[in-house]
Amino acid sequence: MTAEQKEILSDLVRKNRYMQSIGIELLELKEGYARGRLPFSEDIVNPYGSMHGGVLYSLADTIAGLAACTCGRYSSTIDGGLHYLRPAMGTAYVYCEAHVLRQGRQIAVYRAELLDDRGVLLDTGEFTYFMLEEEV
Amino acid sequence: MTAEQKEILSDLVRKNRYMQSIGIELLELKEGYARGRLPFSEDIVNPYGSMHGGVLYSLADTIAGLAACTCGRYSSTIDGGLHYLRPAMGTAYVYCEAHVLRQGRQIAVYRAELLDDRGVLLDTGEFTYFMLEEEV
Amino acid sequence: MTAEQKEILSDLVRKNRYMQSIGIELLELKEGYARGRLPFSEDIVNPYGSMHGGVLYSLADTIAGLAACTCGRYSSTIDGGLHYLRPAMGTAYVYCEAHVLRQGRQIAVYRAELLDDRGVLLDTGEFTYFMLEEEV
Amino acid sequence: MTAEQKEILSDLVRKNRYMQSIGIELLELKEGYARGRLPFSEDIVNPYGSMHGGVLYSLADTIAGLAACTCGRYSSTIDGGLHYLRPAMGTAYVYCEAHVLRQGRQIAVYRAELLDDRGVLLDTGEFTYFMLEEEV
Repeated sequence: MTAEQKEILSDLVRKNRYMQSIGIELLELKEGYARGRLPFSEDIVNPYGSMHGGVLYSLADTIAGLAACTCGRYSSTIDGGLHYLRPAMGTAYVYCEAHVLRQGRQIAVYRAELLDDRGVLLDTGEFTYFMLEEEV
Repeated sequence: MTAEQKEILSDLVRKNRYMQSIGIELLELKEGYARGRLPFSEDIVNPYGSMHGGVLYSLADTIAGLAACTCGRYSSTIDGGLHYLRPAMGTAYVYCEAHVLRQGRQIAVYRAELLDDRGVLLDTGEFTYFMLEEEV
Repeated sequence: MTAEQKEILSDLVRKNRYMQSIGIELLELKEGYARGRLPFSEDIVNPYGSMHGGVLYSLADTIAGLAACTCGRYSSTIDGGLHYLRPAMGTAYVYCEAHVLRQGRQIAVYRAELLDDRGVLLDTGEFTYFMLEEEV
Repeated sequence: MTAEQKEILSDLVRKNRYMQSIGIELLELKEGYARGRLPFSEDIVNPYGSMHGGVLYSLADTIAGLAACTCGRYSSTIDGGLHYLRPAMGTAYVYCEAHVLRQGRQIAVYRAELLDDRGVLLDTGEFTYFMLEEEV
């Protein structure tokens, strides 16, 4: 990625109102890879006191979608799925690492893994993106 | 469902902090079925101006999870997936209808369909739940 | 679909060696829809005596993929998933109905439902296809 | 795994008629892990000449299901999904490696990765199993 592309992606993050409103932070971005995190807070829990499955999916989709944009074009989610392995609780942050499985001209597939503070795998999912014509 | 179970489920909705914080409303609940909606707002859009994919998934999982509880026990999501068919924009609300595909003693599968104000299908997904021992 | 397109699709069926070898039959084909079936046989069961999950998925993907071709172009599976609701046994055939959820120029999404002789829903899944440039 | 359990699993493989009929071979089995392969043949191709998506899914589900049985109990697939990354052609075998993501008392989640002769990743998927009461 060029410095200019990085700047455009940072702008994309700023314009992602939902990402801002639930507090997802982007930590790292390189070709085919992105890493981010979301602080645990009482506003995003389910009735059982762990982070809501929809929030976890949002974190995964957001970070994987940004990873897909590192190829130089914008991405739009075609479909996504998440497997819940362990409850997200007793951790200050949930971290997400997304890496490329396939980056084609039109179709990209990324895996997202969610981890707690100690690095334990909480959730894993795969996201399919359509790559838009417009360049980042 | 008994009146008592309905009351317990309403309480479950009140305790679902994330559901409250993004504004998901439960509209209807009967055995094997739930319907809800989420008002469109600027806080839950993606950078392209349509409702964020993570929000749409959250709506689907929340309503389908409540539908699963109508069997009289609490549900915990094992896995979920969503297919994005059309962008969620130009609509005051996104509606979700969830209905049972299989309600077993331990495993339940529900389909969630998201629709705009005019009833156009925006997204569809399937969610697998583990049914907890505790009764609603 | 034109008569010519129907003929080309029949040819596609004849060239689908795996479809022929496990015995999938195409019963009906119209725009955005296909229906087929697979006879139960001892060669395609799992160790528990019901039709193998991989065979059921194969039936679903094959029929949904043909349904996607009714738009006039060839399809290639991007991803697919199946939920197993009830075991496929005690039935002479498993039937598959596939119908369009979204038919775009490049991306198509189809739902496949598998039913037994009495019309009981056994399995349901969603398949995402990339539509090739070549016309049927 | 005990020697006795290994023997019971080998028996399970022999009784898996579909696995035998398409030619899936089990190569390795240890706790939370299984590896197998399927020879490329003209009987299992799609109309485009690559291995059929349903066959690839069958290989993944079969090997991941055997991996799940290494915990000492039988497994039944709840749901499965596969992402097709690259066409399976020009390879003598397709190999499958499955490893545990979560092995619970009732629910297990396994990842299956399909590779060609040179170790290139062709497909990846995740499978959810219900663990039966009966011991292996």
